[in-house]
Amino acid sequence: MASDFTRMWSELEPVGRDPQTGGYRRFAWTRTDRDLREWFAGECAARGLDLTEDRAGNQWAWWGDPDERPGIVFGSHLDSVPDGGAFDGPLGVVSALATVDALRAAGRTPDLPLGVVSFVDEEGARFGVACAGSRIITGQLTAERARGLTDADGVTMAEAWTAAGRDPSTMGPDPEALRRVAAFVELHVEQGKALALAPDGTEDLTDRRRAVAIGTDIWPHGRWRIDLPGEANHAGTTRLVDRRDAMLGFAAVVQDTRSYAAELGCVATVGKVVVEPGGVNAVPSHVTAWLDARGVDEAAVRATVAGILGTAERFDAIHREESWTPPTRFDAGLVSRLSGILPDAPHLGTGAGHDAGILATHGIPTAMLFVRNPTGISHSPVEHAELADCHDGVAALTAVVTDLCTRDAD
Amino acid sequence: MASDFTRMWSELEPVGRDPQTGGYRRFAWTRTDRDLREWFAGECAARGLDLTEDRAGNQWAWWGDPDERPGIVFGSHLDSVPDGGAFDGPLGVVSALATVDALRAAGRTPDLPLGVVSFVDEEGARFGVACAGSRIITGQLTAERARGLTDADGVTMAEAWTAAGRDPSTMGPDPEALRRVAAFVELHVEQGKALALAPDGTEDLTDRRRAVAIGTDIWPHGRWRIDLPGEANHAGTTRLVDRRDAMLGFAAVVQDTRSYAAELGCVATVGKVVVEPGGVNAVPSHVTAWLDARGVDEAAVRATVAGILGTAERFDAIHREESWTPPTRFDAGLVSRLSGILPDAPHLGTGAGHDAGILATHGIPTAMLFVRNPTGISHSPVEHAELADCHDGVAALTAVVTDLCTRDAD
Repeated sequence: MASDFTRMWSELEPVGRDPQTGGYRRFAWTRTDRDLREWFAGECAARGLDLTEDRAGNQWAWWGDPDERPGIVFGSHLDSVPDGGAFDGPLGVVSALATVDALRAAGRTPDLPLGVVSFVDEEGARFGVACAGSRIITGQLTAERARGLTDADGVTMAEAWTAAGRDPSTMGPDPEALRRVAAFVELHVEQGKALALAPDGTEDLTDRRRAVAIGTDIWPHGRWRIDLPGEANHAGTTRLVDRRDAMLGFAAVVQDTRSYAAELGCVATVGKVVVEPGGVNAVPSHVTAWLDARGVDEAAVRATVAGILGTAERFDAIHREESWTPPTRFDAGLVSRLSGILPDAPHLGTGAGHDAGILATHGIPTAMLFVRNPTGISHSPVEHAELADCHDGVAALTAVVTDLCTRDAD
Repeated sequence: MASDFTRMWSELEPVGRDPQTGGYRRFAWTRTDRDLREWFAGECAARGLDLTEDRAGNQWAWWGDPDERPGIVFGSHLDSVPDGGAFDGPLGVVSALATVDALRAAGRTPDLPLGVVSFVDEEGARFGVACAGSRIITGQLTAERARGLTDADGVTMAEAWTAAGRDPSTMGPDPEALRRVAAFVELHVEQGKALALAPDGTEDLTDRRRAVAIGTDIWPHGRWRIDLPGEANHAGTTRLVDRRDAMLGFAAVVQDTRSYAAELGCVATVGKVVVEPGGVNAVPSHVTAWLDARGVDEAAVRATVAGILGTAERFDAIHREESWTPPTRFDAGLVSRLSGILPDAPHLGTGAGHDAGILATHGIPTAMLFVRNPTGISHSPVEHAELADCHDGVAALTAVVTDLCTRDAD
């Protein structure tokens, strides 16, 4: 099992890696994406799994017939953020395939159909909407809107589909594909330091009981756009008292984003900003900032955001909620069953969105497994998980699959 | 005179105006620039002036022969910043042409050659170097570097010259063109509120003695690049204590830019910023900011910048001085002579760079006239000067020219 995991990992390693940054640029419906899709198809074929694609282009590989009886699905995604790491996504796909190998090596065969899924466009790096593949098949993103989304070069998703040899008119909700899924378990690299710290807060990467955690919920999270007004003016000749410099309000928003989040126990980030006119010698006439806020407690997130937006309003800003996702609790029965299978595994909520969250919201019993991240760094070329922890992840997934849907081979 | 000023102004008004913003986009060596150059050539031809171009493409129109005896030159530029106003540049060119008309109407003829200049690419909006036309002919910008400057589309200045039908190999210092200039007076719209305020600080747009000022010097000014480090990370899963968010240092730099400048009586601006990776859900791994600082007093500007860079260093930033221009004093004899001609005109230093500053640094006796700006707003579509004040500008320029280089017509 270990050697097959390592082989798959080595094969994926060079695909879409930027030689300059060492980070990955695996964006939906590009040539790199096609290479990844072909790699996945090849792995499934080598295992004799039946590969299908749904109406968003997500790839499903089945061991057994899910049209006879819905099955248990494992997997994740292969795409990345710009200059992302190797683990976010691929670890779940490779671990699911390694689990199939482990079951076979152990002489077990599923008595429920077993599916391995590779979701397309989870990061939304190219067209701006995260979890586009799962959102389209569940109807949370309409095909009409999806087809019209554009990338940085103005290419629409519809055009990208056509260029990739797909017919964009076939895009849409896919209840049939979803009906085949009795339950979904997504294994994913942990994206914070929670598993790298002992309960007393000291770093501890040796505790094998903390190599894998059970995901219990996705924190409430949202995104806000803040538009700060100013007045364009000459940076050399305009007295300070005569200025309306939009950048000053922006600086206050950034500082209060950190202070409100710290005070209220949430995380909040200003990661994107656009300044107009954007000249070195021009007083900024307009700043657009985007705020991302998340946390365990919905009321605390709301209070954090209210504080930050209050600061923005003091600078005459207008703001708009671009998205809001309430807390997503994974299926209590499934989480409890995973707990029984992995009694030592800590329980963990996450501030990141996942296809598992989209499927859970759609009513499919869903849970997650998180593999320890020694630094907590993610969405970065240095994102990492120790091989031993990855193997523990495969072992945990194998135990789960064994319990949920296998019997001894006849 | 008044009607001819108005006619010229109306002809220029639509050229290069963006219908959306109402601002001007008159960039060097574009089609709009060609239209402006042809307009200027037509106006000079209509007045019987001899038009020549120097080795940077600046246009010089002569009444009299400057190769016999160096002459007095008036004028400014016709290009604009992105979404700039109508006055910054064109007011000086149109006023110079109107001055020629006023002299003729008064039956006066210059006993020194009289030149009207339209400098090319003063704003540097396309290729990033301000006063490119005057810097090239004085050798302050080498032809080699100028030819290689690129615009936002990657087009070099050499390629832009070729596209405009010019031979870029002819670009370079032009001592002959400069030898013809005995003195240069640039009339320009004031870019702050200095002339709109009475000495007691209250607004007063009626005082005709403050419609035009004599420029005495260009403040010392410079530009710094500040690179703030961070660590890319997931905005949802990374605890605040585990973050190195480059945006926090940036916010501190912006706030201290304002506070140091206010404390030390300078102006300082952060007008441009680039954030990496720039994703809404990514902790910023790097922020590059540009600082512009100017002021009457060189030591105060240096102290302001030292304070701001000290703040940046507390966030582990590295910084680089991209440019520094010491104070430029206009020619004392010329300023004193203008003072005698315009005894009521206030004296004014300016925080803006001008071709007049480049020529002064080159050793040509140079001064400026500033026409009142009622709001102080410049580099903006709403930049304005009252028509009555513009006429006072032409009258002042006419008085100066009359004094400096005319005799009664024979």
